[in-house]
Amino acid sequence: MTSSSASPQDPPSASALDRFHAVIPAGGVGTRLWPLSREGAPKFLHDLTGSGSTLIRSTYERLFPLSGHAVMVVTGEAHGEAVLGQLPELRTADLVLEPEPKDSAAAIGLAAAILHARDVAAGRTGAEGTIMGSFAADHVIAPVPLFRDAVGQAVATAATGKIVTIGIKPTHPSTAFGYIRTGEHFPVPDAPDAHQVIEFVEKPGEQVAQDYVASGRYLWNAGMFVAPVALLLDHLAAAEPDLYAGLTEIAAAWDTADQTEVMARIWPKLPKTAIDYAVAEPAADAGDVAVIPGTFTWDDVGDFAAIARLNPAAQQENMTVLGTKPRVYSEDSSGVVVSETQRVVALIGVQDIVVVDTDDALLVTTTDHAQSVKQAVKALKEKGDSDVL
Amino acid sequence: MTSSSASPQDPPSASALDRFHAVIPAGGVGTRLWPLSREGAPKFLHDLTGSGSTLIRSTYERLFPLSGHAVMVVTGEAHGEAVLGQLPELRTADLVLEPEPKDSAAAIGLAAAILHARDVAAGRTGAEGTIMGSFAADHVIAPVPLFRDAVGQAVATAATGKIVTIGIKPTHPSTAFGYIRTGEHFPVPDAPDAHQVIEFVEKPGEQVAQDYVASGRYLWNAGMFVAPVALLLDHLAAAEPDLYAGLTEIAAAWDTADQTEVMARIWPKLPKTAIDYAVAEPAADAGDVAVIPGTFTWDDVGDFAAIARLNPAAQQENMTVLGTKPRVYSEDSSGVVVSETQRVVALIGVQDIVVVDTDDALLVTTTDHAQSVKQAVKALKEKGDSDVL
Repeated sequence: MTSSSASPQDPPSASALDRFHAVIPAGGVGTRLWPLSREGAPKFLHDLTGSGSTLIRSTYERLFPLSGHAVMVVTGEAHGEAVLGQLPELRTADLVLEPEPKDSAAAIGLAAAILHARDVAAGRTGAEGTIMGSFAADHVIAPVPLFRDAVGQAVATAATGKIVTIGIKPTHPSTAFGYIRTGEHFPVPDAPDAHQVIEFVEKPGEQVAQDYVASGRYLWNAGMFVAPVALLLDHLAAAEPDLYAGLTEIAAAWDTADQTEVMARIWPKLPKTAIDYAVAEPAADAGDVAVIPGTFTWDDVGDFAAIARLNPAAQQENMTVLGTKPRVYSEDSSGVVVSETQRVVALIGVQDIVVVDTDDALLVTTTDHAQSVKQAVKALKEKGDSDVL
Repeated sequence: MTSSSASPQDPPSASALDRFHAVIPAGGVGTRLWPLSREGAPKFLHDLTGSGSTLIRSTYERLFPLSGHAVMVVTGEAHGEAVLGQLPELRTADLVLEPEPKDSAAAIGLAAAILHARDVAAGRTGAEGTIMGSFAADHVIAPVPLFRDAVGQAVATAATGKIVTIGIKPTHPSTAFGYIRTGEHFPVPDAPDAHQVIEFVEKPGEQVAQDYVASGRYLWNAGMFVAPVALLLDHLAAAEPDLYAGLTEIAAAWDTADQTEVMARIWPKLPKTAIDYAVAEPAADAGDVAVIPGTFTWDDVGDFAAIARLNPAAQQENMTVLGTKPRVYSEDSSGVVVSETQRVVALIGVQDIVVVDTDDALLVTTTDHAQSVKQAVKALKEKGDSDVL
């Protein structure tokens, strides 16, 4: 259909990848990781795997071989400086700062709208338009080559005019994630694993989760979306016309002198909704969504139990110990210690313990109660201890 | 026997109390209370009961109605200033600073020797000589009137020419304390509860401890000794002649310009032994020891389990919380938190937990493991973390 000059020998995925622009939404505090994650220092700004890199830096480096410098980050105004500190290569025009949190449809939608406006300005239309791929800043993925292969297949599939998600092959019947119900194999050259998506389903109960996993037809929804920006915006316009109109107005002013003023005026009025409701689910209903099953391990580092799981290399006997210069002494104990101070931490006879030691706050809980940290943070806020949140 | 001018109406205990001089040995770090207790800030310098007073101040105030200003403190050189800070009323001549720890026989023996030297210099002999009463600086006692009654009886009994201990009526078959085997009632006016002591016995095993308590004839040895200083020194001279000779030489120079020089020269050479071996046990074998059973509650605050036990008033729901300005949030948790910092401490789903939060060290253990803190401190020392000990 296009006047592409690619020779028949060129793999379609190679030319599709030329259209690829990575988008990294870096929002969310990660309340279940308090007091490590804070409003001022959210999860993605921490090294939670002992890799030496923050999660956002790791995300960037994971994508770089595919995207090169075509990377956009959407984050809160308060974190702009910290993000640039982590990603000095990032072009300032590709750093989108939200005056306030507006959920994922606005964040990802604005990235799509800006990229589309640039396409229009540059005369790139149809099969030349940008294919964006959105990947959260705070997920942990390994091995990276398997991830890159899945993204490559997703981009190739998106190039056929699909919204493509990468679903994770479940390792256990988790009730903490939404699921993707897969359909027939979807024939795409360079994307041998592509399948149709029948529907997205919410976090299930335990029995349903077990049935899902046993069926072999469900994948975890990891919130990864790869799509031609024009197609994504079409679906957004249909499902959320007000949001679409606002984002289009901001995008028209982007890269101009009016950018800041228009953003400040329009953004606060935008509706708050998730990209799943605004785009993915209606697009799936329309038969417009495909999925690449990801066989890599994936963790959204939802709580401190995840930290223990993700850091086998940091184990001192039965304790996972994280920190720049941890001074941890443990006897007859197991669990995880995150030490952000130079204090000596002595643990005696405590099992599956979680100790997070920071300058102004200390958490002591167990891996079994890791999910309850969110309620504790809520209670601290109500108690007036917001200075440590 | 004496030329006392007391009328027959005067209670003998009143005149005996005139001879009373309290001695407070303030030694021992309280390693099981690390990181609250330190080499630089031992147990007796802390308020461990939420009373608003340090243990040594409470000890002083408990004795003051009996002793007035006749109080001597024996402590390490490093703690002299802190002790004076707690006891500004203390006469400097009654502050005995040990150049190094030498165990209780040297500490209590030196107090006796100094008080005896003063008696000799003042021409007080025989039934006019000082009766000392030695009470550790770091014990918790209540109600105080019962304690004072026991001390009054002990002084009256000591005035008959006995070494008197105050033994605690056991509330449970503890294996953490030595026991006192009591004999016949010992007739002393003004000391209706006095009994002979048959022997002191070491910390027993569980079965033996149960037998002791069941017999009703055993008391806990709380290390409280009340005795005429001349009699105490006689027994010390017999059992530990070298120690006695050294202490006598120091005492002769006390209250003179040579005090410091002689102390520095003699003290380091003194043998290290406990007052129990050097005086109490041989004196008991000689039939020279009596006991007043104490019906007050007594706790040597041996570990953090004791702290929880001693602070019912500091409970927030199921947590005992101690500290100047604790900011403790607990959910589905029980145990004890000692907060020496201004940090928020959040506890979720931890039972019988012990958290001690200080500027440079953090302890997390359980009340069941409270006794193990001593080994942890030893391990930290071996590891090179002595800066926090």
